[in-house]
Amino acid sequence: MSTVLNKLGALEAARLLNRRELSAEQLIRACLARIEQREPQLQAWATLDAEAAIARAKVLDRGPVRGVLHGLPLGVKDIFDTHDLPTRYGSSIYERHQPDADAACVALCRDAGVVVPGKTVTTEFATYTPGPTHNPRNLAYTPGGSSSGSAAAVGDDMVPLALGTQTAGSIIRPAAYCGIVGFKPSFGRVPRAGMKNLADSLDTIGGFARSVEDVGLLASVLMRDPRLLKLDYDGKPRIGMFRSQQWRHTQPESRIAFEHAARVLSAAGAHVQEMPMPVEDCMVVQLHADIMSFEASMSLAYERHTHGVQLSMKLQAVLDAGAGISTERYLTLRQHAARLSARTDAWFDDYDILLAPSAAGEAPFFEQGTGDPQFCRGWTLAGVPTVHLPFAHGPQGLPVGLQAVGRANDDHRLLSIANWVQALLAEHPPEM
Amino acid sequence: MSTVLNKLGALEAARLLNRRELSAEQLIRACLARIEQREPQLQAWATLDAEAAIARAKVLDRGPVRGVLHGLPLGVKDIFDTHDLPTRYGSSIYERHQPDADAACVALCRDAGVVVPGKTVTTEFATYTPGPTHNPRNLAYTPGGSSSGSAAAVGDDMVPLALGTQTAGSIIRPAAYCGIVGFKPSFGRVPRAGMKNLADSLDTIGGFARSVEDVGLLASVLMRDPRLLKLDYDGKPRIGMFRSQQWRHTQPESRIAFEHAARVLSAAGAHVQEMPMPVEDCMVVQLHADIMSFEASMSLAYERHTHGVQLSMKLQAVLDAGAGISTERYLTLRQHAARLSARTDAWFDDYDILLAPSAAGEAPFFEQGTGDPQFCRGWTLAGVPTVHLPFAHGPQGLPVGLQAVGRANDDHRLLSIANWVQALLAEHPPEM
Repeated sequence: MSTVLNKLGALEAARLLNRRELSAEQLIRACLARIEQREPQLQAWATLDAEAAIARAKVLDRGPVRGVLHGLPLGVKDIFDTHDLPTRYGSSIYERHQPDADAACVALCRDAGVVVPGKTVTTEFATYTPGPTHNPRNLAYTPGGSSSGSAAAVGDDMVPLALGTQTAGSIIRPAAYCGIVGFKPSFGRVPRAGMKNLADSLDTIGGFARSVEDVGLLASVLMRDPRLLKLDYDGKPRIGMFRSQQWRHTQPESRIAFEHAARVLSAAGAHVQEMPMPVEDCMVVQLHADIMSFEASMSLAYERHTHGVQLSMKLQAVLDAGAGISTERYLTLRQHAARLSARTDAWFDDYDILLAPSAAGEAPFFEQGTGDPQFCRGWTLAGVPTVHLPFAHGPQGLPVGLQAVGRANDDHRLLSIANWVQALLAEHPPEM
Repeated sequence: MSTVLNKLGALEAARLLNRRELSAEQLIRACLARIEQREPQLQAWATLDAEAAIARAKVLDRGPVRGVLHGLPLGVKDIFDTHDLPTRYGSSIYERHQPDADAACVALCRDAGVVVPGKTVTTEFATYTPGPTHNPRNLAYTPGGSSSGSAAAVGDDMVPLALGTQTAGSIIRPAAYCGIVGFKPSFGRVPRAGMKNLADSLDTIGGFARSVEDVGLLASVLMRDPRLLKLDYDGKPRIGMFRSQQWRHTQPESRIAFEHAARVLSAAGAHVQEMPMPVEDCMVVQLHADIMSFEASMSLAYERHTHGVQLSMKLQAVLDAGAGISTERYLTLRQHAARLSARTDAWFDDYDILLAPSAAGEAPFFEQGTGDPQFCRGWTLAGVPTVHLPFAHGPQGLPVGLQAVGRANDDHRLLSIANWVQALLAEHPPEM
C-alpha cells in the first residue's frame, strides 16, 4: 500500500486518517518519497523541510483529530507567508526573507490539521516570469503559472492538496495544463492577510486537488463553509455553453472537449444551451489587464521604487504601463467592470453554471513561458467562482478540460454541479 | 521662525521646501524638538529614529525635489510594515518584528519625498484595546483609536501629516477627538499591501493633517490622483444634514455643532436640507460589527490559533463572536450591506455631500477607552469617502466637529466642498 499512498485523494486519505487506518506520518513519508524521486526533474518546490513535516505528522498522530484536513499534506504557494519556512514570492528581492507569521489561509489549514512539507514555486510576484517548474505530464512543457509549483506538485501526486492564488488566470490555467482540478472561489471569501498582494480588487485565494470533492474539502476550511463538504447534486442543471470572445484563439483539442461536454451533458438530461457571445466582451481581456497593471503598480510600489533592478524586464514593463494609467481612466475602467459583473450575474437567472474554455489548449513548451490567461481574465474580473475540470487530452497527450463558472457567492452550487459534471465526463471520455 | 516650524501646515511647508526657503533638515529638527518636549506625556510614538530621519532629510536637501511631499515629516501608524523600523501592530505577539519591506502606501509617500521620524501608536491590531497615547488637547482624555498616535502627533504639532487606517471608525473618531482633519478615502483606492489586515471588505487607508488642503496633498500621493492638489470650489453645494439613527447618543456639543453648521452653510448660499432618518439604518451598527468580527476572525487566524493568550480579552471576545457567525449568515449580512450601499449612493443624486456627527461628543476620559465608532460604521460599510472637519469645542474645551461624506469614488468633489465648508466655519465659529 505504501507505494501508492501518495496517490490517494484528499477525501479518501482523510477518511483513513480519521479512522486511524492510516497515519499522518505514513502519508507524509509517501509524499516525501515521491518528491525525492521526482523533484530533481519537476522542480515544483521553492523550499522543502522534510524533517519538520515528519515531526508535525508525528505530533498529529499522537493527538486527537484536529479538523477535516487532519494529517493531509498541503503544498503552500510561495506567495503566502509562513512563520517556519522562508518566503520568496518568486523574487530575488526576498532571497533571505523569513516571515514571523503564517498567512491567514495557511493558519486556517494548519488549524484544521494539515502537514506542510514546503513552499511551492510561484512565478515572480505571481505574475508572468516563470520559475523552474516543469509540467508533470511531460517535462518539456510548462505547468502554467503563476501557481506553477502547486499545480505541478498535485498533478505529480507529490501532495493531495495545494494552495494557489489567481489575479488573472493563475489557478485555472495551471490546473488545466497539469490535468487537475483548480478552484478559484468567489472574490473576497478567503482572507488575504499574509499573502503578497498584487491587485487589491482581483487577488483571490484558492486551491488544487485531483477531484472536485477534494478541492471542496480544502475550500470548506479556506471559506469556513461546511456545506462544501457535501457536494451532492441530483437534478437537471441548466448549463450555458460559453465559447467567449477568445474562442478564435482556441486550439482544436479545446473545441473538441467543449463540444463533447455539451453532447454528454445534454444526453444525461442537463438543459444545455449555447450562449451568445456578447460584443462588449471583446474588451474584457484588455479591461482586466489595465485594472490589474494599475493596481499592481501601486501594490508593488516598494519593490518598484527600491529594488527596481531586481524586477524582470517583463514585470517592469507591466508596472510602468500601470503607472501610466491615470486614476480617472482607472475609475472609468472599474465602472465598465462593474457593469460587466452585473451583466454576468444576470446570466445566472437562466443558467446554474456556465462551461467555458480554461486555456487555448494543451500546455505550451517550457521555453515559451507559462501560457496566456486570456480565458480567465473576464471571470476573475467579475469575481465569480470558477473550477477547472480535466477530462480530455490533446495531440501531445497533454491534459485539456473546461472551466465551470458559477454565480458570485454561490460556490456550493457550482462545486456540487461541477462534481456531477466531472463524474459524467469521467464515464464518457472523448475519443481524441 | 524655527520655534514655530513644527506648526507649519503640510502645504505651506511644501511651498517653502520647494523654493528651498526651508530645508528638510530644519523642518524635521523642529518636529523632533517638539516630539522630545512632549512625547513623555503624550506617548504618541511606538518607535522613533531621530538620527535616521535627520540623515534622510539631509539626503533630500542635497538632491532634487522628489515629489509633492518632498521634505515633509510623516507619522506612520504602526499597523504598516516599514523596512527600517520595527512594526508591532500594537501587539506583544510582534514585540520583535522587523519587516523586510515597506507597506505600499509608505513606499508611495517615501517616493514622493517624506521623512519618517517613526511609527505611531496603534491600538491592538487596530481594534479596541488602547495603547498608551493621550489626547494632545488635554492629557486626561483619550485621543481615540485605533489610529491613536497618528492623530495625537498631528494634533500636537509633532508632524504635519500622518497615515491611518479605518475599519470601523479609526480615522474619523481620533481626528474628531484630537481636533484635526482625518480623511478616509473611498474603499479600495489606496493599496493595502504591507498593512496588517483586519477585515478585507472594510480596511481602508487614509491620513491626518491640520487642514483639508493638507490632507488632500497626502491623499494625492496615496491615491495617485493629482486632482486632489487643487481643491477649488465655487458653487452652491447641495448639503444633506444627516443626524443618523445614532443621534440619540449625541452629546449637546455635537448637536450644537450640527445645527450651527447648517445655519452657517445655509446663510452662505448652500442648499441645506435635513435628511430623513431611514428606519432600516437602526441595524447598520450591528451589521457592520458582525461583518467586521466575522472577517477579523479569519484575518487574524494565525494570531488566534497560535498566540491566543497574547490577545486581549476584548479582542478574543470579538474574534470568538466572529467565529460563531456562520458563512451563510455572513453572506446574508453582506447582501444587506450591498443594498445599503446602493441606497447611500442614490442619496448623492440629490446631495453633493452629507454632514453627519463624527462621534457622540468630546473625547472620553483616558481610562474609559478609545470611544465608540458607532457614528462611522455605516459609512465605512458603504465604502464612501468621509472627512472629519474640526470647528467647535465642547464643555471641557475639547474639540468637536462633523464629518463630511461624499459619493464613492468622488473623493475630489468631497474634499473640494469640505475645504469650502472648513473655511466658512472657521470664519463663523459657534459660540459654545
